[in-house]
Amino acid sequence: MADPAASTTADTITDTAVDLTREAAARLVEVHRPSSEIVHFPETAPLRLDCQQLLGPFSIAYKTYGALNAQKSNAILICHALTGDQYVASAHPVTGKAGWWETLVGPGKPIDTNRFFVICSNILGGCMGSTGPASTNPKTGKAYALDFPVITIGDMVDAQVRLIDHLGIDQLFSVIGGSMGGMQVLEWAARHKDRVATAVPIATAPWHSAQNIAFHEVGRQAVMADPEWREGSYLDKGTRPARGLAVARMAAHITYLSEKALEEKFGRNLQNRTARSFSFDADFKIESYLRHQGSTFVDRFDANSYLYITRAMDYFDLEAENGGRLARAFVGTKTQFCIVSFTSDWLYPTRDSKDIVKALNAVAANVSFVEIESSKGHDAFLLEEQEFFSTIQGFINAAAQKRGLGGGPRAELRPREAQR
Amino acid sequence: MADPAASTTADTITDTAVDLTREAAARLVEVHRPSSEIVHFPETAPLRLDCQQLLGPFSIAYKTYGALNAQKSNAILICHALTGDQYVASAHPVTGKAGWWETLVGPGKPIDTNRFFVICSNILGGCMGSTGPASTNPKTGKAYALDFPVITIGDMVDAQVRLIDHLGIDQLFSVIGGSMGGMQVLEWAARHKDRVATAVPIATAPWHSAQNIAFHEVGRQAVMADPEWREGSYLDKGTRPARGLAVARMAAHITYLSEKALEEKFGRNLQNRTARSFSFDADFKIESYLRHQGSTFVDRFDANSYLYITRAMDYFDLEAENGGRLARAFVGTKTQFCIVSFTSDWLYPTRDSKDIVKALNAVAANVSFVEIESSKGHDAFLLEEQEFFSTIQGFINAAAQKRGLGGGPRAELRPREAQR
Repeated sequence: MADPAASTTADTITDTAVDLTREAAARLVEVHRPSSEIVHFPETAPLRLDCQQLLGPFSIAYKTYGALNAQKSNAILICHALTGDQYVASAHPVTGKAGWWETLVGPGKPIDTNRFFVICSNILGGCMGSTGPASTNPKTGKAYALDFPVITIGDMVDAQVRLIDHLGIDQLFSVIGGSMGGMQVLEWAARHKDRVATAVPIATAPWHSAQNIAFHEVGRQAVMADPEWREGSYLDKGTRPARGLAVARMAAHITYLSEKALEEKFGRNLQNRTARSFSFDADFKIESYLRHQGSTFVDRFDANSYLYITRAMDYFDLEAENGGRLARAFVGTKTQFCIVSFTSDWLYPTRDSKDIVKALNAVAANVSFVEIESSKGHDAFLLEEQEFFSTIQGFINAAAQKRGLGGGPRAELRPREAQR
Repeated sequence: MADPAASTTADTITDTAVDLTREAAARLVEVHRPSSEIVHFPETAPLRLDCQQLLGPFSIAYKTYGALNAQKSNAILICHALTGDQYVASAHPVTGKAGWWETLVGPGKPIDTNRFFVICSNILGGCMGSTGPASTNPKTGKAYALDFPVITIGDMVDAQVRLIDHLGIDQLFSVIGGSMGGMQVLEWAARHKDRVATAVPIATAPWHSAQNIAFHEVGRQAVMADPEWREGSYLDKGTRPARGLAVARMAAHITYLSEKALEEKFGRNLQNRTARSFSFDADFKIESYLRHQGSTFVDRFDANSYLYITRAMDYFDLEAENGGRLARAFVGTKTQFCIVSFTSDWLYPTRDSKDIVKALNAVAANVSFVEIESSKGHDAFLLEEQEFFSTIQGFINAAAQKRGLGGGPRAELRPREAQR
């Protein structure tokens, strides 16, 4: 996911390979004592992972917004993407930036926290309080690092189920998420049919493509090529693979924007200069932007979490998981689906969403599908797109009315740039 | 450019960070004593570069195939792409692999060395005998490294002009090249109009797009993030940034194939296993392929050359170079053009070729344009594509007949996979 604000600085990413910055130290604190709520599950109630290992104890950090009604029927779970977190509608404790979906979620917003109880948890494998590779392994007293089991999207969802149990909620009014968040929505709908009234998978796919695996593998190899990664044990060694992680982030960022968006936003424009420098400085705005994205990312994210989460995405294949037939994932579903894609998204193009729609149609599920016209690429789901907001709001309100939750006021959308 | 043969090995790229292999040592020998011919230009005849520095002495290494006729009218210059070299139609001295365009160039091939005198030079900035950052700086007695001036595509072409002068050729029958080779073709046609009878820019663009700059910047940052790069002075230090360069190559490789080609060739198929390993091994074929591409590349290529050549490509903007109007580059041209693009090439898509065609039409140049249907992506220009071969052969033969060089026999095309 991208910071849509173009950088105005031109830090080279080699500058990031310094001692821990204040931000990086703050992130490490968040791993163990997150600013959000946290629920701990004891060793006696472990999670059985798809790799067949038992994980326990484990913790899930989460934020809630709004109030759960007496019937416990107004809960919406938001699932975050690769580098997201639980701070969907409130400031990030490390960066201080606004919540990553504040344009969509909040009082009077399309996902209205005046009416709905919104839950967002840091995923299993993350680094903002939920158990992940940066957490302490109780068996060794050190960070798990590569001793953390390789997890799947299904495992992330199963961990969220424990959280929903803990909150005493039988059925979620809705599960909503984009990109990897959309994969979680699909697993919720497939694995826990009775617990999801409506599901909104956005800008996602039923399996990860070869090209997407390829981009992730480049990112992982960039991290692992950094000697400061120390075979994964950098936390114990007091180092961090900042350069490698920054390169991984840069490569990923290209895939989040469309070619057209890059052309419109940056083109061949120079950064703070009128002529080429005939050097390896960040002459072009696009270079400066990418370097900035790389160098700021390393302060707020754990490199091993990046490896584990990208791996989970690569492993995601809802078709293979259901005996080679995607429709089988949804047999018997009563969930109401709203599938959303964006025209210029080449990471999870519309055809991937259509594969989901076809599978749902094959089992006569209740499904609507909207392709949003946008030039912003994959990142469109995080940005100000009125048609997207209207789609979400319309679907939510109609579904809420049907379930006796009221249709809600027509929220007034304030045009403002999304921030992350 | 890609090795189209999928790897069957699963080396991690971290394995490449070892002492110089036999191949890497052989490559270093090629820098100073190439297996091909070489022409040295003395300090008294320096090259004035676009950065306004004078470069001299300098050398250009080259291969020729076939014989120059008495009128010196049958010479074809082939311009290589980013990681290519002069071994267009004969075995690479380091890897032992077949010439990179042997399917297209050779006796009886579409570019028939029985009839034409084919010249291919290692570009200025390269690492196979032409002067580049790995060459010895006569002022210091050490490798140039970052003291080598930042060069442009135009500089590469101006250096080739010296070679053509040296060979006593006034006018080339044709200049032909794909990708960065196509950029050189355009500069030849723009800067040296009278010396080019026909020009064939293939799978190329009149300027480098923001997305392409972005991919190159990721590659450069991957190299520079490798501590063994040593601020560019790795040759003097006896190290090499093998891990960083391998990551750069991996990222670039994704852009050479189409999404469809990746899907058809690799999909989600596993490599030498029947189930996911729940580890960071190369489970998927695509991962194994990319790791192999990365680890083999570092033996045959110099990391600083990679930085300089990608920079030259990013700087390429024939429109800006001609006062903001592309057509101006071609005013007064008598050259006959054949522009070729491939439908699934997303690195240099057809619309880039069309921009060239429009500019040529604006000055009433003699131009034909062919878009080849192919699912192979940018790499299609290096692979076995019959329609592409027929196009080149047809254009060459017609132009040759017009110039009294005979129409040539219809070459028999042997179906075989291209190798690099």
